[in-house]
Amino acid sequence: MITSIECIPCLLRQTLDAARMAEVDQEIQASIMRKVLALLSEMDLFQSPPELAQKIHRIIRDTTGVVDPYDEIKHKLNKTAMDLYPELTRMVQTAADPLTMAVRLAIAGNAIDMGVNGQLQTEDVLKIVEGVVEEPFFGNVENFRSALKQAKSILYLADNSGEIVFDRVLIEHISLDRVTLVVRGGPVINDATRVDAQEVGLDKLVEVIDNGSDAPGTILKDCSIEFQNRFHNTDLIISKGQGNFETLNDVPGNVYFLFKTKCALIRDHTQQPVGTQVLLQTQAKLAETISYA
Amino acid sequence: MITSIECIPCLLRQTLDAARMAEVDQEIQASIMRKVLALLSEMDLFQSPPELAQKIHRIIRDTTGVVDPYDEIKHKLNKTAMDLYPELTRMVQTAADPLTMAVRLAIAGNAIDMGVNGQLQTEDVLKIVEGVVEEPFFGNVENFRSALKQAKSILYLADNSGEIVFDRVLIEHISLDRVTLVVRGGPVINDATRVDAQEVGLDKLVEVIDNGSDAPGTILKDCSIEFQNRFHNTDLIISKGQGNFETLNDVPGNVYFLFKTKCALIRDHTQQPVGTQVLLQTQAKLAETISYA
Repeated sequence: MITSIECIPCLLRQTLDAARMAEVDQEIQASIMRKVLALLSEMDLFQSPPELAQKIHRIIRDTTGVVDPYDEIKHKLNKTAMDLYPELTRMVQTAADPLTMAVRLAIAGNAIDMGVNGQLQTEDVLKIVEGVVEEPFFGNVENFRSALKQAKSILYLADNSGEIVFDRVLIEHISLDRVTLVVRGGPVINDATRVDAQEVGLDKLVEVIDNGSDAPGTILKDCSIEFQNRFHNTDLIISKGQGNFETLNDVPGNVYFLFKTKCALIRDHTQQPVGTQVLLQTQAKLAETISYA
Repeated sequence: MITSIECIPCLLRQTLDAARMAEVDQEIQASIMRKVLALLSEMDLFQSPPELAQKIHRIIRDTTGVVDPYDEIKHKLNKTAMDLYPELTRMVQTAADPLTMAVRLAIAGNAIDMGVNGQLQTEDVLKIVEGVVEEPFFGNVENFRSALKQAKSILYLADNSGEIVFDRVLIEHISLDRVTLVVRGGPVINDATRVDAQEVGLDKLVEVIDNGSDAPGTILKDCSIEFQNRFHNTDLIISKGQGNFETLNDVPGNVYFLFKTKCALIRDHTQQPVGTQVLLQTQAKLAETISYA
């Protein structure tokens, strides 16, 4: 998906947040803003928002010398979500349809990044969880169910820390032996890396690999060759979050996207109102299916 | 007040809105965004947000060739607010303290620009009006009352179209013969110009002058000499809206600012939560008072 000018205020808001999170003084924050404004003024719009975000967060790291401004908050997000892990598991086990519940929870967990800049409390996460079945949902769970049944190998592309606890619940429901969890190759915003997978115990349950990239999405050409091979030779890919959708929605493959629609650009792309839980099969795959029908 | 890096995402959001309002194609919108990003990357932060906004909206006008992208919406805002004029007048006349009610209404009217990009309906304005006495209020009406009593000449600096109907109600309550209404010298965003004053009938009631500037605030050095003279030789100045506050808060003078706090920067400056109705005496004046005490 290419970047819209609509993304620019949002990318700058993210820049400001990250610059603050790095706890550097006003002058350095202003210098970061100037560099990012200059970058965006000359940007190629024919790249995805996460490609721009990757460049922006590199500027922030280089200028501040802070490798991971979100380090502390990520630990907190994981801890807060882990406190609810028993409740999440119970919800899936007692649901009329456990898969639908696990999918909805995994998507709802995608909203946890709202807490990144505030003081996220257990009650806030609990509220996300309690609202999970009331939120509008768009997608075909039955298609997803049969895709899961057929797949011998599954790549699960994680998105954020905290959210990764909700992913654990879905992964445990799917079956552990067929799933490989993929995290980012380096810290960017609050995206999950190896540390987060370990912190929520996923490394003890499934194979965990990283994609070799520090983009807040999955830019295939920027990922390691190892990951690219895995991507192209896996039966099924489960892609979490808007960043992965923005970078993979045009890529052919058996990809199911699970995320919450968070902005007007994605609303227009998915034709679903902002705040909808969506379970979407990749359009590239759909087109392929149609052409072979 | 100098610009904070906090203002940047907001200025760019405003740029996008205005570019859309001008109804030019995507390519021209992208070109505007690039120019504004380049401008902001080299900006002098020691100027007020309306000084930057002035430059931005000149870029938009020059690039699109549309002199007043908000022309249509401004007429609509005036009309919608005028529909409520009888109700506004009644509210003041029947209030326990008519001045407090007129002040609160004038400040609440400052929120009417929320409707600029949506479909503002009479009901939305009615909601603003109905909530007027429930909203948090900060300020000393008694000081303002006695300042009004003492003043032989009053300059009333208008802010937005639509809102100007609420200003009319306050002006009618204050007394017509001492008040001169000041509008912008040229169109910028949805700010009130001579056309708006005429549209809501204020030109028939009081003297109307313009400040000679196309900034969405009152940048004295950018205003006409005539206006500057009036500014410095008036007993009392009533300044509406955040843009006028941002440009005049450091200027000595007998200025009362009436506005609704709309962002974190202004929250920090006023020490009042976002969404508060504030009636504030100029800090420069306060400091002067203190130094002579």
